[in-house]
Amino acid sequence: MTGTLAVVGLGPGGAAHRTRAAEDAVRDAQVVLGYQAYLMACADLTGPHQCVLSSGIGAEQQRAEDAVRAAAGGARVALVSSGDAGIYGMASLALTTVAALPPAQRPAVQVVPGITAAVAAAALLGAPLARDFACLTLSDALAPWEAVEARLRAVAAADLVLALYNPRSRGRSWQLGRAREVLVEYRPGDTPVGLVTDAGRDSTQVELTTLATLDPAQAGMHTVVIVGGTSTNRLGDWLVTARSLGAL
Amino acid sequence: MTGTLAVVGLGPGGAAHRTRAAEDAVRDAQVVLGYQAYLMACADLTGPHQCVLSSGIGAEQQRAEDAVRAAAGGARVALVSSGDAGIYGMASLALTTVAALPPAQRPAVQVVPGITAAVAAAALLGAPLARDFACLTLSDALAPWEAVEARLRAVAAADLVLALYNPRSRGRSWQLGRAREVLVEYRPGDTPVGLVTDAGRDSTQVELTTLATLDPAQAGMHTVVIVGGTSTNRLGDWLVTARSLGAL
Repeated sequence: MTGTLAVVGLGPGGAAHRTRAAEDAVRDAQVVLGYQAYLMACADLTGPHQCVLSSGIGAEQQRAEDAVRAAAGGARVALVSSGDAGIYGMASLALTTVAALPPAQRPAVQVVPGITAAVAAAALLGAPLARDFACLTLSDALAPWEAVEARLRAVAAADLVLALYNPRSRGRSWQLGRAREVLVEYRPGDTPVGLVTDAGRDSTQVELTTLATLDPAQAGMHTVVIVGGTSTNRLGDWLVTARSLGAL
Repeated sequence: MTGTLAVVGLGPGGAAHRTRAAEDAVRDAQVVLGYQAYLMACADLTGPHQCVLSSGIGAEQQRAEDAVRAAAGGARVALVSSGDAGIYGMASLALTTVAALPPAQRPAVQVVPGITAAVAAAALLGAPLARDFACLTLSDALAPWEAVEARLRAVAAADLVLALYNPRSRGRSWQLGRAREVLVEYRPGDTPVGLVTDAGRDSTQVELTTLATLDPAQAGMHTVVIVGGTSTNRLGDWLVTARSLGAL
């Protein structure tokens, strides 16, 4: 008899932006797995009757395999991510791992959606994502930079508002600066840009700038950078994109 | 003394996918405004001590003005949207309306994020948004179709996974068929496509098809259409996009 696997998005920070479905999935699990910082974000939902397994940030394949093995063995398992588990999260790896099992061994899987970082950041900035937008990651850990840059150019040319995930980390310092150079080829220097770090946590920081004055050092590992389009305006301390779209 | 305005995203359906912050904002409000279907989705949070004002689906500008006027007059107001209020929702209109007031009359505004339809739909399909994606609306109510189609072409050429909002309504029957014609210029006919209608409600429907066999009649007013990219695969009943990106 196989068990169940819930791949759970915890949202951006603490309890305020979690959904009830996410909380129930963690509370009802016999085994809870996640990167240690994500387990801390749901520590109020777990208890000594559960097996809580913490892993390091690089160990994603191993974590997916551990979660699937426990669920295939009969346990109710919750695999937690921050934000939404489907967007740069654990759901893709977990489902691929399940699909590789013989059908009789596959646990039932449910993906429980969460508030992804771009949506949390946008709410703090006002309404920058009010019409068409793209989410792109600047991480080249799983892609050649040329492919990342090609997507950036296409989206910039199409005048979509951009939400940039993973703009910078300890080991990746130049990508956001290079992205800025690419974007100013397509958009004016006074295009509004918002940086949100640690959205939904006590340490939340919101900074408003422009493409011309964006300093990549303002971004860190937990920053989302939102770059406006032609119809994004700065209204006081808000970034607001119009819902209408002009003629070409 | 001005009041406060919370622009609240209720998520895709009932209570399971609402956040605690959204529930608190509705419960704590003195005045709650929204399109009637959205007020029904949070009827468990409102009571006879509150002024609950329902309006029709077209009356968005009026609803924003009513909400801002009540908040400027001193009330605690919640303006509710389904999904996320910042993504094709009421936040853009509400903030623009507030910014037009003299500073001393502006209420404090908070945008409370919610699970947007694309994220809810993706969770039901598996993990189609696991790497870069774009959200586009096919509605030409506030834009010339040429501008909508130009964005569609740019995103299709860049191999981004696509989440299409407002693919079809009673008055707009041809746009999804036309979008399909455009997309098959850029992507193979066997590109996986998922349609999710009424995500998060009891009436949820999930359909899997391909670009070649997509029938626009499968979509309705409450459908999100997710179109895969090169690295999106169908694994059994799931759509899963790889987190890695190949060379160009």
